[in-house]
Amino acid sequence: MINYLFWVIPVCSLVALFFAFIFFRKMLKESEGTDTMKTIASHVRKGAMAYLYQQYKVVIIVFIILALFFAFLAYGLGIQNNWVPFAFLTGGFFSGLAGFIGMKTATYASARTANAARRSLNDGLKIAFRSGAVMGLVVVGLGLLDISVWYLILDNFVDAATESQKLVIITTTMLTFGMGASTQALFARVGGGIYTKAADVGADLVGKVEAGIPEDDPRNPATIADNVGDNVGDVAGMGADLYESYCGSILATAALGASAFVANHDMQLRAVFAPMLIAAIGIILSIIGIFTVRTKEGAGMKQLLRSLGFGVNLSSFLIAASTFGILYLLQIDNWIGISCSVIVGLLAGIIIGQSTEYYTSHSYKPTQNIAHSSSSGPATVIISGIGLGMISTAIPVITIAMAIILAFLCATNFDVANMISANNLSLGLYGIGIAAVGMLSTLGITLATDAYGPIADNAGGNAEMSKLEPEVRKRTDVLDALGNTTAATGKGFAIGSAALTALALLASYIEEIKIGLQHIGKETINIAGKVIDVSAATIPDIMTYFEINLMNPKVLVGAFIGAMMSFLFCGLTMNAVGRAAQKMVEEVRRQFREIKGILTGEATPDYARCVEISTKGAQKEMLFPSILAIVVPVLVGVIFGVAGVMGLLIGGLSSGFVLAIFMANAGGAWDNAKKFIEEGNHGGKGSESHKATIVGDTVGDPFKDTSGPSLNILIKLMSMVSIVTAGVTCAFSLL
Amino acid sequence: MINYLFWVIPVCSLVALFFAFIFFRKMLKESEGTDTMKTIASHVRKGAMAYLYQQYKVVIIVFIILALFFAFLAYGLGIQNNWVPFAFLTGGFFSGLAGFIGMKTATYASARTANAARRSLNDGLKIAFRSGAVMGLVVVGLGLLDISVWYLILDNFVDAATESQKLVIITTTMLTFGMGASTQALFARVGGGIYTKAADVGADLVGKVEAGIPEDDPRNPATIADNVGDNVGDVAGMGADLYESYCGSILATAALGASAFVANHDMQLRAVFAPMLIAAIGIILSIIGIFTVRTKEGAGMKQLLRSLGFGVNLSSFLIAASTFGILYLLQIDNWIGISCSVIVGLLAGIIIGQSTEYYTSHSYKPTQNIAHSSSSGPATVIISGIGLGMISTAIPVITIAMAIILAFLCATNFDVANMISANNLSLGLYGIGIAAVGMLSTLGITLATDAYGPIADNAGGNAEMSKLEPEVRKRTDVLDALGNTTAATGKGFAIGSAALTALALLASYIEEIKIGLQHIGKETINIAGKVIDVSAATIPDIMTYFEINLMNPKVLVGAFIGAMMSFLFCGLTMNAVGRAAQKMVEEVRRQFREIKGILTGEATPDYARCVEISTKGAQKEMLFPSILAIVVPVLVGVIFGVAGVMGLLIGGLSSGFVLAIFMANAGGAWDNAKKFIEEGNHGGKGSESHKATIVGDTVGDPFKDTSGPSLNILIKLMSMVSIVTAGVTCAFSLL
Repeated sequence: MINYLFWVIPVCSLVALFFAFIFFRKMLKESEGTDTMKTIASHVRKGAMAYLYQQYKVVIIVFIILALFFAFLAYGLGIQNNWVPFAFLTGGFFSGLAGFIGMKTATYASARTANAARRSLNDGLKIAFRSGAVMGLVVVGLGLLDISVWYLILDNFVDAATESQKLVIITTTMLTFGMGASTQALFARVGGGIYTKAADVGADLVGKVEAGIPEDDPRNPATIADNVGDNVGDVAGMGADLYESYCGSILATAALGASAFVANHDMQLRAVFAPMLIAAIGIILSIIGIFTVRTKEGAGMKQLLRSLGFGVNLSSFLIAASTFGILYLLQIDNWIGISCSVIVGLLAGIIIGQSTEYYTSHSYKPTQNIAHSSSSGPATVIISGIGLGMISTAIPVITIAMAIILAFLCATNFDVANMISANNLSLGLYGIGIAAVGMLSTLGITLATDAYGPIADNAGGNAEMSKLEPEVRKRTDVLDALGNTTAATGKGFAIGSAALTALALLASYIEEIKIGLQHIGKETINIAGKVIDVSAATIPDIMTYFEINLMNPKVLVGAFIGAMMSFLFCGLTMNAVGRAAQKMVEEVRRQFREIKGILTGEATPDYARCVEISTKGAQKEMLFPSILAIVVPVLVGVIFGVAGVMGLLIGGLSSGFVLAIFMANAGGAWDNAKKFIEEGNHGGKGSESHKATIVGDTVGDPFKDTSGPSLNILIKLMSMVSIVTAGVTCAFSLL
Repeated sequence: MINYLFWVIPVCSLVALFFAFIFFRKMLKESEGTDTMKTIASHVRKGAMAYLYQQYKVVIIVFIILALFFAFLAYGLGIQNNWVPFAFLTGGFFSGLAGFIGMKTATYASARTANAARRSLNDGLKIAFRSGAVMGLVVVGLGLLDISVWYLILDNFVDAATESQKLVIITTTMLTFGMGASTQALFARVGGGIYTKAADVGADLVGKVEAGIPEDDPRNPATIADNVGDNVGDVAGMGADLYESYCGSILATAALGASAFVANHDMQLRAVFAPMLIAAIGIILSIIGIFTVRTKEGAGMKQLLRSLGFGVNLSSFLIAASTFGILYLLQIDNWIGISCSVIVGLLAGIIIGQSTEYYTSHSYKPTQNIAHSSSSGPATVIISGIGLGMISTAIPVITIAMAIILAFLCATNFDVANMISANNLSLGLYGIGIAAVGMLSTLGITLATDAYGPIADNAGGNAEMSKLEPEVRKRTDVLDALGNTTAATGKGFAIGSAALTALALLASYIEEIKIGLQHIGKETINIAGKVIDVSAATIPDIMTYFEINLMNPKVLVGAFIGAMMSFLFCGLTMNAVGRAAQKMVEEVRRQFREIKGILTGEATPDYARCVEISTKGAQKEMLFPSILAIVVPVLVGVIFGVAGVMGLLIGGLSSGFVLAIFMANAGGAWDNAKKFIEEGNHGGKGSESHKATIVGDTVGDPFKDTSGPSLNILIKLMSMVSIVTAGVTCAFSLL
């Protein structure tokens, strides 16, 4: 029966892609509106596509170099699985494809959303949301498809002594395609993030602050670049990012399942399929949720929020209930406990989302306090925003800490007395992994609520530039504001699942080290006088063998370097945005100065030049931080060995997770503090307070849209790189 | 012979106190200048003393509660050493005393420095520097005195089965007084930091930015509070802080020496005395260095810097050379290797100091880039400053990582093959500890170069307010600017030693856990089937017994909470400064509005009200973050046990160290970017660029003087608390 159940996975992925196609086709049939609207949309579309092609050109080179390196390790040195280079490439390809399709859809949808919003709010919402759903469904569809196809291929070709060992090799090999996805995602997030924020900051600083013209005003030379940025950063970047999260959590859990249940092949197979099946059923339930989202004309934020919330909550509730059914059907050991682990993950995601909303929405005290502090100028806005961001890390960290312990204990039947016996450790880590899968199981719909935000934002930009009736802009603004709120929840899931997935990947690293040892011909290890077969070694055995304990100076040094990596990476991306934005500022000022008549509307600004500046800036700046993230884990492995790498990953994970929350929440709160003032508080638009909060918002832009979200990928990519190059660490390490 | 050598320690400490007294007396004999100068100095002195009394009142209550708690643990439950409450109290007392004397000296010295600067730069330097030296010598003198007296007391009263075990108990008990010092230091740094920055930010925002009057202008109501702040924050806070660092590193190393050489009591005694003797000889060499510092009239920054640099370098060079002599004389095993560990520490401190200077001095690119970014407004100043701060963490972290490995390897004779055998682990950790001692051995003079900065700053304030000739102000400005540069080096030593000391404390925690197990009657533990005497258990044994490895979810959860603690703590202190500063801003604005004639100089502002606001703000705000730092380690211990605590400490240490460097360097760079513009670049004083960098400087104030330096203490205090409450963790832990 288990083999039949497997087919549910590719079928559901095809269903996702089918519905994505339907939604896309339906959207395309809508009218793009007036000629001006069409022209603007085509400008943005061209700019975005041009950027993406440029970016893919660079990324392809990186992928080829890495694939050749992996091929050398596999075929030249024989310290790596032969499938690695191929799996790596497909992961990168599909991740890029998900981003590409999402962006293509978004650039087609924005003018159509604006045009539909001329008719009614409901029509606008439907187009924007369904277009967002295209991205959500493409991400989950391509993800599960990639997973199931690779599973079938490897199942046919991999050879091993026993079926159980074969499954371990299959699942760990599949992690390699996770590394491809992570690498692509990092470039997409960093490059897109630099692009969008350079344009945004440049447009705001000169346009809004100096020239005093509104956002998206066609007189601003950077406005097209800004709208292109929303697409390449917030849509394509996010798509690649969440593709990576989704696949990463499923693959890591499958690998943990294969090793936790290695003694019993039948149960092992069930444990490997469980996360995939939960994800597959999640797709169907997401589609159901998507169909329930609709609203009436004249609906305000509250009704819209209720409508979206209903869809998301329905899907979450259904997946919670179905999990018990799926795991019961699978007849997996301790199915009740493992189902509870899934629920723990879902709940943790919701709590983190709520906490994000509390700290970043201007309906609550913290963000209002930032707005209040604007009366003493930009400095106190920055101080209080940084303070808020740092304090806001407490609830998510405690939530994740509790989720880790609870998911672990549920999966091990609350066997507290032997909490970390070898057997419980494997089971418990599987529980942590499947909690991450639970968190992301409704990604189809949560990503739709996330991705439709930038579409609505662009629709607003199009309406503004095409000088449509203010009513239309108002409607798209409502949609956009709503997107900001639902995005908060989405971020909670993304960041929470990143932490849990990274933890699960740590355990996979240990598995991969065992395979690496065998690759270099080390079939047995000597632990405290006992000789143990590497293939049968437990996690605690490996821990003891490599002395991966907290007093080992190699672990400590690794932890320091890991913590530093998060900061260094953020610093590099922050500076990249700063530099690129400054070039944009200078260009916009130049145009205002040299092209007479821009501000009176008599002359057209040179939009293309601004697009070019953002593109070049992003291309130039994205390489170094991204390559650093790939090279450092390898270097640490070669110098400090397995213990150093484990330290690196823990240090990077713990501080990266906290830093990511800090940056995301501080940025969100600054953004909304500005909006709070724009609603008429503390002097309203144009007041000194408003100007002070614009400074906050500008600082927050790279926090929340470049550095912060890239950290999620960084912590997983460092784990993935360590996993894929485990053979190198085993074969060559200095200390 | 070894027992005779011991007496060198108290003798050197008394020599330090003697010279401190001489310098103090000599300074007092100088004239305080005109009546106005005297009045102003007495205002500042009174304000500072009033604040300190207020602060000590609050702190005494906290100390009494904690001492009672420890007494209950010791005498009520019997799970702790009987000496703990007393040692804890003396540590707090002496740390407070060091701050008090330093501040008393500083408040007497500032007017005298200003007055001497009327005669010549050299006279000004001499008074300011010698007064700074009072603090340096008081800190090291009281520190070593406290250590030697407690050693004598415990040596007489402690009972144990063997002499070796007795020494282990003595040295671990003495760590308790380190906790007292850390607690006092945290309150002093946090309270003083909030006070000084609330006043500084408040004075700058309204005075400089809004009213456009210069710094330290007597028309600014917050100016006295600002000058008081320099004393309570930068002098008293720093004194308590470095007293804690100094004692902490010596005590942690002594405790490691006692356990590393437990097999041979004679060698053990030598290993315990070694760090104390290095520190003692360091005092004498610091005094020699202090006497070489002098300069000629008309000397610029460069000559002054060379003069100070000569003193510090001479002391460092002499201590490096003497270390070999001391350890040879002590006839300690592998004396060459251990001496090399000391040199590694010294070098690491110097490199970190140099890197701090590179990133924060406006003679170099990074800070100039921030100044350059000011052309596009405050937002890009903030973005580039945060970027710079984050990037600047790389060199110090890599330096410390290398120092850890090298100090470890030197102390273990580069036995790479058995790098982490039980024996090498103890020896290597001892090497890491003694590297920290090496870093701090010249504290007598480095602290002098640090502490004279605020004195010169206050002297400048006094000159400004007393309307002395601009020439005087110029001279004090040169002294002050110099202080900023030397302070960078000082910060390198403080932060580097904090990381190494915290690592050494981790090992002491393991020792304390062994004592804790014995206190609850657990004399043997069962490890992998073998029964081992707790008193003979090695560090790896304890690691295995408590499963303190990196896949244990309790360790992981602890690491997350530890990383979060650093951020939460910074966020709370940042917000505290923000809130207190805002009250100050409102008050200064109120006075400008309501007291007619302030700005024309016809009416005197109400200085006292501003002093009161800072005092109240600091008192109210310092409690919560400080108590959190004490309570969280205990809570984590009770819930997650020893493994959770170890995770907490590693997570807190790694991310806290990096965060501290980030905040200190970003703050320093903003400060100097502003000064760079004030020197006439990018439009000079009063330009839009200048205003933008003032925003950066204001944000940087709490970064570099409140949150950043407090983190150094936080990471050690959390270790100290864990050590002192190890018995509680052993007796009660849930998981």
